[in-house]
Amino acid sequence: MKILVLHGPNLNMLGTREPEVYGKMTLDDIDSTLKELACELGVELTIYQSNSEGALVDKIQSAVGSFDGILINPAAYTHTSVAIRDAIAATALPTVEVHLSNIHSREEFRTKSFVAPIALGQISGFGADSYLLGLRALFNHNKK
Amino acid sequence: MKILVLHGPNLNMLGTREPEVYGKMTLDDIDSTLKELACELGVELTIYQSNSEGALVDKIQSAVGSFDGILINPAAYTHTSVAIRDAIAATALPTVEVHLSNIHSREEFRTKSFVAPIALGQISGFGADSYLLGLRALFNHNKK
Amino acid sequence: MKILVLHGPNLNMLGTREPEVYGKMTLDDIDSTLKELACELGVELTIYQSNSEGALVDKIQSAVGSFDGILINPAAYTHTSVAIRDAIAATALPTVEVHLSNIHSREEFRTKSFVAPIALGQISGFGADSYLLGLRALFNHNKK
Amino acid sequence: MKILVLHGPNLNMLGTREPEVYGKMTLDDIDSTLKELACELGVELTIYQSNSEGALVDKIQSAVGSFDGILINPAAYTHTSVAIRDAIAATALPTVEVHLSNIHSREEFRTKSFVAPIALGQISGFGADSYLLGLRALFNHNKK
Amino acid sequence: MKILVLHGPNLNMLGTREPEVYGKMTLDDIDSTLKELACELGVELTIYQSNSEGALVDKIQSAVGSFDGILINPAAYTHTSVAIRDAIAATALPTVEVHLSNIHSREEFRTKSFVAPIALGQISGFGADSYLLGLRALFNHNKK
Amino acid sequence: MKILVLHGPNLNMLGTREPEVYGKMTLDDIDSTLKELACELGVELTIYQSNSEGALVDKIQSAVGSFDGILINPAAYTHTSVAIRDAIAATALPTVEVHLSNIHSREEFRTKSFVAPIALGQISGFGADSYLLGLRALFNHNKK
Amino acid sequence: MKILVLHGPNLNMLGTREPEVYGKMTLDDIDSTLKELACELGVELTIYQSNSEGALVDKIQSAVGSFDGILINPAAYTHTSVAIRDAIAATALPTVEVHLSNIHSREEFRTKSFVAPIALGQISGFGADSYLLGLRALFNHNKK
Amino acid sequence: MKILVLHGPNLNMLGTREPEVYGKMTLDDIDSTLKELACELGVELTIYQSNSEGALVDKIQSAVGSFDGILINPAAYTHTSVAIRDAIAATALPTVEVHLSNIHSREEFRTKSFVAPIALGQISGFGADSYLLGLRALFNHNKK
Amino acid sequence: MKILVLHGPNLNMLGTREPEVYGKMTLDDIDSTLKELACELGVELTIYQSNSEGALVDKIQSAVGSFDGILINPAAYTHTSVAIRDAIAATALPTVEVHLSNIHSREEFRTKSFVAPIALGQISGFGADSYLLGLRALFNHNKK
Amino acid sequence: MKILVLHGPNLNMLGTREPEVYGKMTLDDIDSTLKELACELGVELTIYQSNSEGALVDKIQSAVGSFDGILINPAAYTHTSVAIRDAIAATALPTVEVHLSNIHSREEFRTKSFVAPIALGQISGFGADSYLLGLRALFNHNKK
Amino acid sequence: MKILVLHGPNLNMLGTREPEVYGKMTLDDIDSTLKELACELGVELTIYQSNSEGALVDKIQSAVGSFDGILINPAAYTHTSVAIRDAIAATALPTVEVHLSNIHSREEFRTKSFVAPIALGQISGFGADSYLLGLRALFNHNKK
Amino acid sequence: MKILVLHGPNLNMLGTREPEVYGKMTLDDIDSTLKELACELGVELTIYQSNSEGALVDKIQSAVGSFDGILINPAAYTHTSVAIRDAIAATALPTVEVHLSNIHSREEFRTKSFVAPIALGQISGFGADSYLLGLRALFNHNKK
Repeated sequence: MKILVLHGPNLNMLGTREPEVYGKMTLDDIDSTLKELACELGVELTIYQSNSEGALVDKIQSAVGSFDGILINPAAYTHTSVAIRDAIAATALPTVEVHLSNIHSREEFRTKSFVAPIALGQISGFGADSYLLGLRALFNHNKK
Repeated sequence: MKILVLHGPNLNMLGTREPEVYGKMTLDDIDSTLKELACELGVELTIYQSNSEGALVDKIQSAVGSFDGILINPAAYTHTSVAIRDAIAATALPTVEVHLSNIHSREEFRTKSFVAPIALGQISGFGADSYLLGLRALFNHNKK
Repeated sequence: MKILVLHGPNLNMLGTREPEVYGKMTLDDIDSTLKELACELGVELTIYQSNSEGALVDKIQSAVGSFDGILINPAAYTHTSVAIRDAIAATALPTVEVHLSNIHSREEFRTKSFVAPIALGQISGFGADSYLLGLRALFNHNKK
Repeated sequence: MKILVLHGPNLNMLGTREPEVYGKMTLDDIDSTLKELACELGVELTIYQSNSEGALVDKIQSAVGSFDGILINPAAYTHTSVAIRDAIAATALPTVEVHLSNIHSREEFRTKSFVAPIALGQISGFGADSYLLGLRALFNHNKK
Repeated sequence: MKILVLHGPNLNMLGTREPEVYGKMTLDDIDSTLKELACELGVELTIYQSNSEGALVDKIQSAVGSFDGILINPAAYTHTSVAIRDAIAATALPTVEVHLSNIHSREEFRTKSFVAPIALGQISGFGADSYLLGLRALFNHNKK
Repeated sequence: MKILVLHGPNLNMLGTREPEVYGKMTLDDIDSTLKELACELGVELTIYQSNSEGALVDKIQSAVGSFDGILINPAAYTHTSVAIRDAIAATALPTVEVHLSNIHSREEFRTKSFVAPIALGQISGFGADSYLLGLRALFNHNKK
Repeated sequence: MKILVLHGPNLNMLGTREPEVYGKMTLDDIDSTLKELACELGVELTIYQSNSEGALVDKIQSAVGSFDGILINPAAYTHTSVAIRDAIAATALPTVEVHLSNIHSREEFRTKSFVAPIALGQISGFGADSYLLGLRALFNHNKK
Repeated sequence: MKILVLHGPNLNMLGTREPEVYGKMTLDDIDSTLKELACELGVELTIYQSNSEGALVDKIQSAVGSFDGILINPAAYTHTSVAIRDAIAATALPTVEVHLSNIHSREEFRTKSFVAPIALGQISGFGADSYLLGLRALFNHNKK
Repeated sequence: MKILVLHGPNLNMLGTREPEVYGKMTLDDIDSTLKELACELGVELTIYQSNSEGALVDKIQSAVGSFDGILINPAAYTHTSVAIRDAIAATALPTVEVHLSNIHSREEFRTKSFVAPIALGQISGFGADSYLLGLRALFNHNKK
Repeated sequence: MKILVLHGPNLNMLGTREPEVYGKMTLDDIDSTLKELACELGVELTIYQSNSEGALVDKIQSAVGSFDGILINPAAYTHTSVAIRDAIAATALPTVEVHLSNIHSREEFRTKSFVAPIALGQISGFGADSYLLGLRALFNHNKK
Repeated sequence: MKILVLHGPNLNMLGTREPEVYGKMTLDDIDSTLKELACELGVELTIYQSNSEGALVDKIQSAVGSFDGILINPAAYTHTSVAIRDAIAATALPTVEVHLSNIHSREEFRTKSFVAPIALGQISGFGADSYLLGLRALFNHNKK
Repeated sequence: MKILVLHGPNLNMLGTREPEVYGKMTLDDIDSTLKELACELGVELTIYQSNSEGALVDKIQSAVGSFDGILINPAAYTHTSVAIRDAIAATALPTVEVHLSNIHSREEFRTKSFVAPIALGQISGFGADSYLLGLRALFNHNKK
């Protein structure tokens, strides 16, 4: 099973960026724990981060035929990108949306996701653990 | 670690209730898989289902001093109950909100949760697996 | 043909409660006229009133396998209860929503019904006659 | 007792028009069943259909002094016509609004009625039976 | 003069529940000060707390003929319960709504009350003193 | 100076229609007082009433080249007719909108006028006098 | 008959203020034409202009017992002053609201009037003529 | 292939009506260019204009069985007529909606179309050319 | 303890102003009862009424250093004055907002208060008694 | 005549992406038919697709001085990009917006276009034919 | 060059008023730094503060013919005063709006300004420096 | 002191782009005047323009550790980019938002800024001078 992991804008700043909201782990830390779990589950991960909406769309499109699912934290683009939504829908791949912080307890505009309605589901609020839970969710879904 | 698992209204109908939305598993099936995972994690579960908002509030209140966290699927009360929100906030216990279906891809009124803003986080859309992921999330949070 | 008749909150106060809005008939009067019509149609009625949302949900759930339809005046819960909506949808039984007063000519919040979109239809504004018309509607629907 | 029955726009297309929404009965079929019931109740019916808002207003006005009530399915004009509302209010005749389909489970704009607030009540969702129930409602109201 | 005092959901948690919002007094403390004032005014109090909307509706209904007024802190149900509003209106008893915290300086959804429009008035923001002021308001009103 | 006077739907019912809102004068009474004033001002009036939006649009269009201004009470169509607005704009004739009742103190939907933004001005609330004031306004405007 | 004429804020700038919107007449010009008409009708006018909401409220209050009606152009306060609305309601004097420009064809916020719902009526869009029409409206109303 | 071409209200005023918005061509000019194109494509056109919503509904209904598609500029009724929408849906004929002006760059209320959601598509902003493009669109669609 | 009592616009009209809404007591009557209670509590009152927003702001500012709290009925300015809100916040004095009528059961615009979110609390609906209750609330608060 | 043809995000997925919504043609198919028509009209096309908002803005800017018009399907960016709107406005080139699907019959958020108000016009719903119609519209506009 | 500097309500409280929001400088401190800069630029300042909307309107009107521009911090009236907006527009003088705090990061109601749309521009968030920047902006504008 | 100056999309078109809105200066002209002022203040500037949201986010992130503040005109991204907002917040650098035109007097959607709530402040409406004022604001802030 091959999973594409996508990190949206500003996630490369993790650890330094507003640690009271996003925690002290870096993106490398998260990627390491993800890889450990992937190894344990027998899943192959490809990980990609970009601050560019277009680059994320390009990557999502490239998943068709190469991956069995997408694990994405669209970050800021969650709330503004119809292009990412459409790209995911176009791939028809099972997709799980994750968020480090609890987007339902922050600014009003962060509670709306363009991605969630076309994803399998959404996991929000558990810090780096959101990614691990999301990988499990995707793995379990694909096994069925 | 002791966790209170709460099932909101109509979840006792699982398996028969709109299976195209909620799947074919019964609530007993979900409880069994939850107990298995709890056993594996070394967590003690108390499970309770009610169709009554007041009864759920009573149960939540009773968790103070007896439990280390709450795993709740508030079901229909997610969208209408300030009382359950206030009860959870009053306990000050870490709480994870889970949903079988993806509430972000259904009727507009189901996208708003009164509980989510005061929970650790929300997991939505993975069927029975939402509960298992929620239990892990709570377990991992409490271990830190 | 067996029909479950449900009266929502405060309907037990009929006759004394705001008679200029709801009329002078008591709930017993309504039940009597309902039973007369049921007798005439050859329908068996079970009638239940509760002020508790949870108790109404319990009763609705119990209708599965025992009744051929539900005639409900959800009263105040019309406008606030997703749980009753979900319970009715879960039973998959034909359901008719009735109201004594014309809910479309009162406060703005009374014009919205959570139940109506998943009911066969709604009858509103004819006093006790709303129930009788609702019973006929359900009877006719089931006969087809 | 003399009742004016009014069918709004496009109801003359019944039977051919979107049968999955409106059923297979023609307007003549509905009129026949209405006349049967009217006969049984001892009521005299005058039936009129028009696609024109102005013609419907003219007809409603003409009811003053000639009829004891109005049974109307305003169809599309339900949601857009203040003129029909004002005409009905001007007659001061008891009026019942009926709909074939359940307007509360369709597009958002169909849930609002300009007529309902000044009608006795509204009956919606029972196909041709909505008219029969409406005629009974009007008959019972006038008898009191 | 006999007054029914009603405490809504989660008020039984007072003292432990979010003390920075609701203060450190317990509900028993509040009841004691209420009884002292009642004694001073020559008023007889019956006090009841419930987390159940339906139980509160039952109790409100029972006040007809037995009490001269209702002093109620509907707590979370303030913002969601049409049933409690309708029950109070049905009793036609003078009713005063009180709140410990200033509901106008909290979340947007707490500023709307279903009860206030049919109450004598609303007192909000003075901690336990809100109850004492409310009792005086009811007492003074009834004396006139 | 030739003025076209247009009466919208249901104004032919004046005198009998809701006299507590619209007064006891008939449309003929209003037309007589209008003609008297027209005579005094040396203005020639053509008066037309219709319940049909399309007929009113036809009449408005016919004013081009034949009239120096339009005095219109669009009645119910005030709030729903873009067609009448567009027809008046198409004639490019000075137009005054009048209302018998004060539309700003009635239902919310009556406070919005599609016509007013393209009229010279609006006069509302003075009963039959609104027409006389409107005729003066149009006369004075044209004399300048 | 004694009428109080009130000019709201910035009307003292007339003639210089945005003449393309408000015309070239000064407030003195308007007052002169008003006095001429008053003379003709046998009405006694007292005219007052202020830029201060409080001063306008003071003046309105003073009208009780001294005047038979109020002719007011509340100007900017039309859209923001509940105090002026309440003052007029407190006097219980017949009041006509006038506007030089057509407030329905300008910025959205100018279409709402706090005064209109408690006035006899509103006249808007006829320049200085709005005042003369308003005076006639008030005069005619009082004569009846 | 037979196509019904419908022109809505005020389009008969073209050439004189607000030429800065709608251009200088008359409706006859447009009909001529349409007929030329129809001739070239081998399509037979029937053209009808009305200012009456009801008459347009009548005409649309008559298209069933006689025409292979509808080309309609609903003009003002675009934004207000549910009846025309329902009539088109009832015919189940392929329908193209066209507009001379760009309705998306005008008043807010002109951006909403009741017809577009049930049409094949919408063409807006190209003057008389909108009709020609619409005819081609309908022709091409029917040929497939 | 020194308390500044502020009466907003039109309260000087009490007794004559809409007695069915505000009661028959004059402002002097209210001031007398307030002084009696102040005397009883050992509080020194300074009372001020103004129809001017600016004058009320001036007075509020002057309270710094001279008073221990503010008891204010902002009347119409409740709903429109950010300036009064800011002035009270600037003083940092404990402030109680009172209303004679129940603002939650009147026009929609009266339910919003700019002052309440920065006040200790709000008391609404008890006629003159609202002031007495407010004085007690302020007194009790300051004693703690 | 030189025209820049721009395809927005995910259009490179055509043929595979949700064929029930967007059809089975690939982007190459569309480009071929566009070139054929361009050839026939004597127009020179430059075609560009990108998933990146910024790249599309760059390309639009480059059109100044090199092209006589822009034919654009902004796809997802239709609904979210002010930058593309501003870029087109900055070029001051005639621009036609096209859509494969009927955006007015899909999700609410797809009905709003940031581009349409500054375009010549919009064509929506005719599949690949939308592009051909758009090219004709642009060609005809430029010829005038 | 002569500039009128206007300070709105509560700015006379600076230094004591909520220093965490507005800083510790007094209004005299700000005026001193403004005068220094004015001296340096060769500009003559007249400075005026008032808590009264009407007094501010009076002062703004008086600027016509005497000043070359207005520098205004409307404070609380920014969000509520159409009268100040109209007064500034009436003077037709270049006007710069300044705010000490960043109004875009505070309560929602503070983000809307009635003044900004008719001002040259708005400067918000730089404490006392906002005034100095505003003076430079006005000076530079007038020099061109 | 080192400042990063960022120009958002389409600002490279300045001088040619809608000069009636944005003026005739080119971006080079603005950069030159900025550099002059920077020189005078002893500030080192790095200037960057991009039409790509992602590239702007990249650049903002790179400012951490290299710059003492950010001066940004986010242009179109002001209203749509949560990613730029989050990037700025992640840097925790003082940031000033500037706009050439007065965004508060243009289309409604331009009045909302995602950036302003997390910036020091916003300067809007002074053409190229907005940048110079912004640089001064940032310089002054950092010196404190």
